[in-house]
Amino acid sequence: VTSEFALIARYFARPAPSGMLGPGDDCALLSVPDGHELAVATDMLLEGRHFLPDIDPADLAYKALAVNLSDLAAMGAQPLGCLLALGLEMVDPDWLQRFSDSLHALAGESGCPLLGGDTTRSLQGRVICVTVLGQVPRGRALRRDAAHPGDDIWITGVLGAPDIALRMLQGRLARDEAVLAATRPLLERPEPPLAFAPQLCGLAHAALDISDGLLQDLGHILKASACGAVLRYPHLPEHPALATLEPALRRQAVLAGGDVYQLCFTAPAAHRERLAGLAGDAGVRLSRVGHIVAEPGLTVLDADDRPMTLSARGFDHFP
Amino acid sequence: VTSEFALIARYFARPAPSGMLGPGDDCALLSVPDGHELAVATDMLLEGRHFLPDIDPADLAYKALAVNLSDLAAMGAQPLGCLLALGLEMVDPDWLQRFSDSLHALAGESGCPLLGGDTTRSLQGRVICVTVLGQVPRGRALRRDAAHPGDDIWITGVLGAPDIALRMLQGRLARDEAVLAATRPLLERPEPPLAFAPQLCGLAHAALDISDGLLQDLGHILKASACGAVLRYPHLPEHPALATLEPALRRQAVLAGGDVYQLCFTAPAAHRERLAGLAGDAGVRLSRVGHIVAEPGLTVLDADDRPMTLSARGFDHFP
Repeated sequence: VTSEFALIARYFARPAPSGMLGPGDDCALLSVPDGHELAVATDMLLEGRHFLPDIDPADLAYKALAVNLSDLAAMGAQPLGCLLALGLEMVDPDWLQRFSDSLHALAGESGCPLLGGDTTRSLQGRVICVTVLGQVPRGRALRRDAAHPGDDIWITGVLGAPDIALRMLQGRLARDEAVLAATRPLLERPEPPLAFAPQLCGLAHAALDISDGLLQDLGHILKASACGAVLRYPHLPEHPALATLEPALRRQAVLAGGDVYQLCFTAPAAHRERLAGLAGDAGVRLSRVGHIVAEPGLTVLDADDRPMTLSARGFDHFP
Repeated sequence: VTSEFALIARYFARPAPSGMLGPGDDCALLSVPDGHELAVATDMLLEGRHFLPDIDPADLAYKALAVNLSDLAAMGAQPLGCLLALGLEMVDPDWLQRFSDSLHALAGESGCPLLGGDTTRSLQGRVICVTVLGQVPRGRALRRDAAHPGDDIWITGVLGAPDIALRMLQGRLARDEAVLAATRPLLERPEPPLAFAPQLCGLAHAALDISDGLLQDLGHILKASACGAVLRYPHLPEHPALATLEPALRRQAVLAGGDVYQLCFTAPAAHRERLAGLAGDAGVRLSRVGHIVAEPGLTVLDADDRPMTLSARGFDHFP
């Protein structure tokens, strides 16, 4: 690989799907079907901050795209394509091959082809910025400000595993190989419910993806929708590998653990059966964990219906 | 400013134009008018590589957006909106105020509102990644692969100034304050022909923006279009401040100097008058500098119609 252009041609340029213009021009070109809106999001991963230098490049590429696909899912949008801006200290063919193979694999599985981007030399570690583009029926996007009092609160997947894995990998929690083996895949290879999410348009009211921790993220829905919520702690879908850990740590991981990339959404009680059926068909675990109330505030009830005292408020990039 | 969310609210969130959803949800939402395609591009700027730590944050924000707007112009697309992914080592209110004011100013002037993005803490200098979204009439985008033999080759604006300014600022060329004062604004505040470019759809064939140097960038058109070109050096629009410099340096700056962010495009000779009229109306300097030929290869003719010997091939991020 002798130049930026050769690098792009070798590792990243792929024939674009029919009707699209992929890498190699000033812009990528694509169409949004009539009656649909474009949904777009971007997410940046920095070496040393979001990943360590020795991370498996296949895991890194997977996660860089998956966290963005999670943002599309959280709006109920279907992927159209993605862009990759990549800063590298050097051209490492093995690393680039593994990285690009993994990116193209997830892009292919999720119907989100790589359409363009930017490559540049970095003086200070790898920098990865993925932008995703998706389509959603006009007016049907799952926004944060659409929760109604009386809505059920639902969660896809399970909670707590990525937080526990990260604590062990960072040495903040004593390493338990069995627990780590069970939780680490959810940290490194999150699987947002991409096929299920677009089916929520027209059924769900508000939605978002759990990236900073359930309490903080649900708090965004409550603030944007000017309402409150009651959660039932025993109904929260804790990852089974957490069962052997200290109760306080488990609560912290379940309520405030980030990197989950599953959905939290609200929907009228009338849609309970329909939602359960769709989730079953899609192979998505779906848990009804509480409900929206008119009064502001977030209450978590324990098994005896008593409010729990909360100290964990999730993750903030600039605390 | 106490959190990522407060930072976004204070400096970056602005009411989105009617019909769009701006910052604050998982994705931004916008519409592409019927009969149009979406054009999208992304560009990353890294501290130490693309800018120095002490750069005026207003200039930095301007350039981060302007270079992306230039990519839209190069496709003949009109801006719809942009996303900003921003990595910062710390929260510096003065810096953020100047940066965001400048970004919003150019976004407002160019009809490209900031619709979303990502903010994160960086451990290793500032990282800026802007993604722009634009619209272009379906099938009318100015692609690199559309040049025809016989087309005129046109350039907007002037050449050479950013390269000379950068050389002086980096100490690679003896500093001449008069020359620097005249050339530096074109390096720090490039003005791509945003209003003129969409009018080229239907008139021009191929186009791109000059970012890596005329010879290298025109070479992309020739390769993609499987043709060649003849340029007439005396017709190339050299910035007047270069007149006092060494001839070899002037040629290098004009032919291979990057960071220009003006358009190079091809168009049938039948459109000469029309193009000149549109450029005049838009206040854009337009120079006819050569023509496309069927035989591959790029020839630059001097004032006596003799081929010049070329050594400068422009800029490559991974030489």
